[in-house]
Parts: sequence; structure tokens; C-alpha cells
Amino acid sequence: MVPHLITALTGPINELEQRVIDSMPATERWFRLEWMEHTPPFYTSVDIRNAGFKLAPVDTNLFPGGWNNLTPEMLPLAVQAAMAAIEKICPEARNLLIIPENHTRNSFYLSNLAQLQRIFNMAGLNVRIGSVSPDVKKSTVIELPHGESLTLEPVVRTRGRLGLKHFDPCTILLNNDLSAGAPGILEDLHQQYLLPPLHAGWTVRRKSTHFRSYEEVAKRFGKVLGIDPWLINPLFGKCSDVDYSTQQGLDAVQVQVDAVLGKVRRKYKEYGIKEKPFVVVKADNGTYGMGVMTVRDPKDLEALNRKTRNKLAVVKDGQLVHDVIVQEGVLTQERLNGAVAEPVVYMMDRYVVGGFYRMHPDRGVDENLNAPGAAFVPLAFDQSTHMPQLGARPGASAPNRFYMYGVVARLAMLAASYELEATNPDAEIYD
Amino acid sequence: MVPHLITALTGPINELEQRVIDSMPATERWFRLEWMEHTPPFYTSVDIRNAGFKLAPVDTNLFPGGWNNLTPEMLPLAVQAAMAAIEKICPEARNLLIIPENHTRNSFYLSNLAQLQRIFNMAGLNVRIGSVSPDVKKSTVIELPHGESLTLEPVVRTRGRLGLKHFDPCTILLNNDLSAGAPGILEDLHQQYLLPPLHAGWTVRRKSTHFRSYEEVAKRFGKVLGIDPWLINPLFGKCSDVDYSTQQGLDAVQVQVDAVLGKVRRKYKEYGIKEKPFVVVKADNGTYGMGVMTVRDPKDLEALNRKTRNKLAVVKDGQLVHDVIVQEGVLTQERLNGAVAEPVVYMMDRYVVGGFYRMHPDRGVDENLNAPGAAFVPLAFDQSTHMPQLGARPGASAPNRFYMYGVVARLAMLAASYELEATNPDAEIYD
Repeated sequence: MVPHLITALTGPINELEQRVIDSMPATERWFRLEWMEHTPPFYTSVDIRNAGFKLAPVDTNLFPGGWNNLTPEMLPLAVQAAMAAIEKICPEARNLLIIPENHTRNSFYLSNLAQLQRIFNMAGLNVRIGSVSPDVKKSTVIELPHGESLTLEPVVRTRGRLGLKHFDPCTILLNNDLSAGAPGILEDLHQQYLLPPLHAGWTVRRKSTHFRSYEEVAKRFGKVLGIDPWLINPLFGKCSDVDYSTQQGLDAVQVQVDAVLGKVRRKYKEYGIKEKPFVVVKADNGTYGMGVMTVRDPKDLEALNRKTRNKLAVVKDGQLVHDVIVQEGVLTQERLNGAVAEPVVYMMDRYVVGGFYRMHPDRGVDENLNAPGAAFVPLAFDQSTHMPQLGARPGASAPNRFYMYGVVARLAMLAASYELEATNPDAEIYD
Repeated sequence: MVPHLITALTGPINELEQRVIDSMPATERWFRLEWMEHTPPFYTSVDIRNAGFKLAPVDTNLFPGGWNNLTPEMLPLAVQAAMAAIEKICPEARNLLIIPENHTRNSFYLSNLAQLQRIFNMAGLNVRIGSVSPDVKKSTVIELPHGESLTLEPVVRTRGRLGLKHFDPCTILLNNDLSAGAPGILEDLHQQYLLPPLHAGWTVRRKSTHFRSYEEVAKRFGKVLGIDPWLINPLFGKCSDVDYSTQQGLDAVQVQVDAVLGKVRRKYKEYGIKEKPFVVVKADNGTYGMGVMTVRDPKDLEALNRKTRNKLAVVKDGQLVHDVIVQEGVLTQERLNGAVAEPVVYMMDRYVVGGFYRMHPDRGVDENLNAPGAAFVPLAFDQSTHMPQLGARPGASAPNRFYMYGVVARLAMLAASYELEATNPDAEIYD
């Protein structure tokens, strides 16, 4: 059932794994205390890269799709975590409304919605799916593979509350990352919980803000573990006012690329790493694997042709790129059936509930795998992240490896929690 | 992996199952609201009997052993629930002390302790096992099957706190049901959480108090489901001042037996049930399957010989029986590999985390199965209790059956919560 997994089983990552396993009680206590002060995002997925010598999150998604890739074995954990989440937010809840992405033709995405509906239904809620897309004008039943079906309904706003015809939800779950901006219909809701909040959408979110929070989290957690935070933190720089089409600001990007490459080179030297450093230039407001470019040499930026530049200039839902983040590239040294793979960890409330490998047969170890052609292989994260094997030889135990992934994913989730606090437009109310 | 299960797939139980499945969101909401007002016991196991026409808890254990019977697949749920429980009680916790039963030679029981230690360790705590038995004078390593080992240490009380040498726990988990009375060393602890509390021990607990609470819970939940509460509630009566050795009070027991049998007979008639009613006479303070007798006719009580009476007179740790409960006997119509079986459901905090079948090849459908010779067959409760299959034909879906078991087990847990509130000696502090 679990496919053959080839990972680099030597090098500093094993020392890191050993530290993480040895520090488990301290780590769990540290998270418990953090969650007393900070609210976890409602649900989160984190893409992780294991370079064999370092391990780092490269993307933190606050509107995770892909729940359909979780195995049936992982569902009970997701249901239990959903129960805990709902209980905290609205114990009286009867009804939950899920607001999906507007592009709803993709059957994988629709299966993701069906899975979310199942999870929250099993947690004891009546769950319906209401679209904010102007194209959805009436209730539509969509048949899915494996005999499932999904009913997509148009949302209705009545007296300040959002719902469906004859369906008034207590909680509204966004599975729409709001790349195109928050529609007015979602604003100023009357006594309804909208989760995640509007400012978690990509009109407000910036990768650079997230990774600045993550850097802080990594430094603090590094002290708990007694490690160099670089082992879990990707270095980065930010450039504003970039226009790929006119090439405006690309010289500043070049300077940043050079600076980040220099820092990485020094770290590689310090650790005796023979790999060639690279960076990944990403849209600061980007998601969905769009607007992403691997750069090995600052000169590469001079050689971009018009087609490539046009492609980089626009991200999801046609949003233009103005700012970019230049992030240390983290190799992925994991392979499944010969294809390059990276783990994606899923969390509900503060709990790791599952995960899978994203693999791409046509991409290299230094490339973005979130691209058409990617495949997903669920792995038994359910057991693994909770069940580290104390005393196992470093690098030899899959559960220990996955526990470590769960820790790093939770660090990224905590960074997202800091980030959402810092960007909360209503924050002054609580001061 | 899952053994063949033969259950009565016809009769009123299917209607009950259908009601339970149809009412899932209402049921889960009802539990959520109950847990806002009442604190669940720290951990609970509940023995359930499925008669094919009714389903009822017959024993609720607040110091559950048998955690070793949970499968590896169930452990992640237990770990996640343990994380939630610890977070509520003492988020700063580093150390947990488990106090086991004093009779610690049984290797099954020791495996149970090792499993509990594993669960709370995985939840992020340093866990050690400290005995209050005067026989445990020094730290002892005990080898267990499968290469595991367990270290049993003598407890130390210093400045009002209980711990081990160089080990000061924040929380003390009792896995000792205190049948022999609460030792003074456990009393008046200084700023430590003792869970479950002392009054959950069998010196204070009474089966009749529990089932009175359960009756109340069953009536209220019966209204939610729109069912006759008898379908989930075993009728009972209580007799005080019974002395089996002198036969004092046995006439009163006979009267109760007659009364309960009469009530059951009327219910059987109402539902057209052809079975012969029976009752189970149990020690009101009893546990561990001791002091239990199946009675089909009040006259049976006159025919008890000296040996049987002496056996009934004493329960665990040599405690004498003074009061008895006369409980409606609930047949078990489930069989595994030909042996009579009853489900046992395990809960941590408010969550169902697993379960197994207790089966006994030498016992009848109307007998107590908690007796030497019983075997345990884990079932995939982990998936099942969380993942009912809506739309499945009643009686045809194992997950739906197990979801129903999880609901009834939680009702019994809720009754235990009411019971502990009512018997709390410190209750007036909170009034």
C-alpha cells in the first residue's frame, strides 16, 4: 500500500531527526503553550522539502484543497480534529456552509469538496456547498467518480447573513483563497463565523510576511531544540515594484538573487555541502504553483524571453504580480517510483491529520512540483506523525521521519497564526 | 484482519440504528452542548450488549485497563484525544505519573500500562509509572512480550506532592480503581491534578447511582431521537443490606428480581419479543466481573449453595458486598467465530478512540463475559465510529453499527459525568 520511498538517509538531516525525536515532550509542550496564546488557522496544508541536509516548508496554504488525497485511514483523525475545532468555535452549530473556489469544473477539486463535506458531516454538522460565483444561478447536482455526487447551490444573503435557500449556517468555511479579491457578499456578516477570515485570502496575504513570521518561529524553536534555525528555515529576500512585462525592477531582483545565493553558499560551506545553491523567485501574492521560477545564476534573469515573462507576470485569477520573494531553493531528495516527490502535510485545528507525497515525473529536484502532471501518493501519515519510534536508528524509521515533517508543518502553521494576527484589520479591538 | 461477525440483522435494532444514523447531526450537537455543561471523565470504557431488539451499556469503567487490546490503527486517535485532554487540564505539563493497580503480575495488565505510557508519551509527556503498593520498594524493570519493558517505581510523597525520585508530575493518572479504598498518600495533594478523582473509585462509586444517571440521560436522549428510552436503557432495582453468607436480605432481592422481571416481561410483550426475560444481580460496589449472577427465576435465589454465596459475597480486593443491583439482563446476540461476544468501547476525553469485542467461548448469551477465559478481538472502531455510511441499508453496515455503539457508549460516559458531579465531595465549593 505504501509505495517505495527513497530518501537520503545520511547527512545532517539524521542529526536533526534525532534532535526532534529526543525533544518530543519539550516540542509538544512548546506547541501547547503557543496555542494558549495564538489561535491556529482553521485548517492548513504545508508543502515541505527535505534536502537531506535541511528540511523546510516552502508553501503554507490556508485554504487547502486536496483533502480527497487523504486515505480512509486518515479520515477519523480529521473528523476528530474537526469536532474539536467546531466545539471551540460554535458548539451550538447545526449547519456549516462551504464556499468553494469559483472554477469548479475540475473533478479532483470537486472530490476535495466532497471529502470536506464528509468530514464535517461525520463531525455532526449539516453541510452544504454554496458558491459565490455569479455563474452558479441554481442548485446543481454534479456526479463525481465512484458514484458520489455533490450539490452546488447559489449563496443567498438575507439580513446580513449568508446562507442558502432554507439554510442558515452558524459557520462559513472558505475553501476559496480569494485570489480575485473578497466579494462584498462575504463582508460584514451578522453573527456568523467566517473561517479562515477574509484577510487570510491572497488579496491580503503575502508570502514574505509569512516567511518573516516563520523565520521568527524557526529561531525560537531552534533554541528549544538547540539547532541552527537555518536547518529548518529557507532564507529569503523581497523585491517590490517588479513588472515582468516591462522588465522594471528586474535588476533589483537580480541583486536579491545574488544576495540570497551568497548567504546560501556560506551556509553550504559551513556544513560542507557540495550541492550548487539555487533560489526560487515567486510572486509575493501568488499561490497555486503559479508565478514560480527556479534561478541558479543572477544572469538567468537577463535571458528571460517575452513568453516566460508574460507567464510570470500573472498569477491565479489573473492577478498581476508587483512584488516577488526570492527564496532559498530547497532541494527535494525524496523520490517515489523514480519521480521527484515532496511531502504535503494536512492539519485541522492544531492537529496533524494526514498527508501525502506530491510527485512529478517530469520535474527536477530543484523545481516546483505544484504543476500540471503532478500525482499524489497518500502515505500513512495518520499513524506516523503521532507514533514516532523512540530508540530507532536516525534515518531508518518512517514514523520518525513523518513525525519530524509534522513538527515542521506545525511550525509553519504557527507562523501563519502569527501572520494572521499581524494582518488582522480588527486587531485593535482586542488590544 | 476483522473476524467474521454474526449479528442479528433483523428486528427493532435496525430501526434504532436508522434513527441514530438519521439523527447524527442532532446527536453530535447534543453531545457538544452537554460537554459545555459537564466535564467528561478523563478516560472511560463501556461494555455494551446488543440484544438484537435493544442495545444497552452494562458496565462503565472509569479506570479502564485493556488499552493493549487497541490496534496500532486506533492509537493515533487515542494520542490526538490525549493531546486534547492534557491541553485542557494542564497545558504546561511536562510529566505524567500513572498509578497502576497493585496486583501487577498479570502480563496483559502490564501491557495495558505500557500502552497507556506510549499514548501519553506520544502526546508529548514524560510518563513514568509509580506504584502505591507497599510491595514495590524499589525501581523494577519488567520485561514484557514483544521485547517491550516497563519500569515500575515506588511513589514518593514530598511536601504534599506525589511523584517519584527526581520526578515531579503535574498530572497523576489513576489506573487503579481504588476498590480497596483510597490510600492516604493520594489525599490532599498540593497543586497536582489527580485523574480520575478519588470519588470515582469503587469505595465511593455505586452501580445504582451510575444507572440512575444513565436512566436520566437515556430519557433525555430518547426525546432527541424520538424513541422509547427502554431501547437503550437496562431497567434496574436496588437492594440494601444484603449479606450472602447469612442469607440476610435475600428475600428483598427476590422481590426486586420479581419486580424487574415483571417490567421486562411487559416490555417484551409490547415489542413482541419471544425471549425469556432474565436479570443480572451484581454487587453495587463491584467491578472486574466479580459478584455477578444471572437469575432467570426468583426461586433460583433460594437454591444458592454455600460455595456460590461465599463467592458472591466478596468482590475485588476482598471488599464485602452489602448492596446489590438487580439489572435487566440484556442478551448479546453477537458472535465471533461461534463464541458469544460483546463490544467494549474506549473513550479518551469526549472522543471514542477505539474498541474491541470481548468474547467467551464457554459462556451463554445471557451470561457475564468478563470472566477468566475471555479473549479480545480488536475491531476497526477507529474508522467505524467516526465514519457512518449514510444511506446504507439498516443492519447491513458495520460502520453504522459501530457508530451506534459509540453513541451509546458516550451516553454512558455522560451518565458517569453526571454521577461524578453528584458524588463530588468538593461540589459545594463550586456552587
